[in-house]
Amino acid sequence: MRIKNHITQITLTAWIALCLAVCLFSNAYAQTILATEWKNLSGHSDDVNAVVFDPDGKILASGSEDSTVKLWSVKTGREIGTLFGHLSAVYTVAFSPNGKLLASGSDDKTIKLWSVKTGRGIRMLSRHSMMVSSVAFSPDGKVLAAGGSAIFGDALKLWSVKTGQEIRTLSGHSDWVKSVVFSPDGKILASASGDKTIKLWKLEGVKSAR
Amino acid sequence: MRIKNHITQITLTAWIALCLAVCLFSNAYAQTILATEWKNLSGHSDDVNAVVFDPDGKILASGSEDSTVKLWSVKTGREIGTLFGHLSAVYTVAFSPNGKLLASGSDDKTIKLWSVKTGRGIRMLSRHSMMVSSVAFSPDGKVLAAGGSAIFGDALKLWSVKTGQEIRTLSGHSDWVKSVVFSPDGKILASASGDKTIKLWKLEGVKSAR
Repeated sequence: MRIKNHITQITLTAWIALCLAVCLFSNAYAQTILATEWKNLSGHSDDVNAVVFDPDGKILASGSEDSTVKLWSVKTGREIGTLFGHLSAVYTVAFSPNGKLLASGSDDKTIKLWSVKTGRGIRMLSRHSMMVSSVAFSPDGKVLAAGGSAIFGDALKLWSVKTGQEIRTLSGHSDWVKSVVFSPDGKILASASGDKTIKLWKLEGVKSAR
Repeated sequence: MRIKNHITQITLTAWIALCLAVCLFSNAYAQTILATEWKNLSGHSDDVNAVVFDPDGKILASGSEDSTVKLWSVKTGREIGTLFGHLSAVYTVAFSPNGKLLASGSDDKTIKLWSVKTGRGIRMLSRHSMMVSSVAFSPDGKVLAAGGSAIFGDALKLWSVKTGQEIRTLSGHSDWVKSVVFSPDGKILASASGDKTIKLWKLEGVKSAR
């Protein structure tokens, strides 16, 4: 009986020691990562739907339910500018690979391309039949893929960044396209849809680097 | 009158020529980008919410309303495996920078970390009070930021990838966090919220490269 108690005590002590070690270890690890609220960027008058850093990490772009896109200085936390033009909620924002352009997709069925330097809208891509919820630049920056909802089978389109022309509608999905993403080499575009499928599209003429 | 007509004709001809040139040019440009449906990845039994390529572009991961995550071979379009474990819709998926881990955020209030090689769940991060809709790995792969809805002010958390422990809750947002993203150097985390603000969080102890 005594021996059994003794063993139980040892086991208990071992468990307590182990728990203590784990706690101390995780605490020590947590201590090595310090996270503090640094800047509060206020200015939007409705939900902020999306944020993205430019490739240098110096500028942050945000898209909001308030129909605007804002550019912010990461260093100071101050607003650089508000990009007006969309007529409805902005769902998605993306910087071009060289950081010079910003694309924004909206509930107003359009995508706008903005000059990051001047804050001016330089192209309006407006042949989607419904809202645009996901945009992606090809790695060479020449093509913009845009997905959204659709009533005419045009949930997914490719646009020429240079001319602002529609390159083509990628027909096939029978429901809205929730997410579009390019492969790192730019040769494949993947689209995820409400129709339960993912489609891979082979692109020719898109380069992996500028 | 004749001169006026003549000028009108010249102007008209010039316009037609210009339009023709623009049409031909855009058509020529469009011709240089060929996009064809290449693979149709079917297997999910409900909406596909998110897709992401691994850093090599060889594997595609998808998260679905059907509560599963799937890994696909980009080359063959075949399913590599289905990752079971979530109890509700998967909203977001992200590969670690080295491509070895996949994180998935779900409506079931948890994040799961999966080994891409074996397809096995290796960590369950489960102290969020509501659904997790956005996850992001720090550039050094050590920290996972997760945002979602919240009832206890815990819409944004940092997790240790190594231990699976919560590093800390980043309190401050008064509504759900729709999007989280790390700056390229890993020193700043940006969170976009339904409370109309974006917050920048300064991180110490996160490195820009492994």
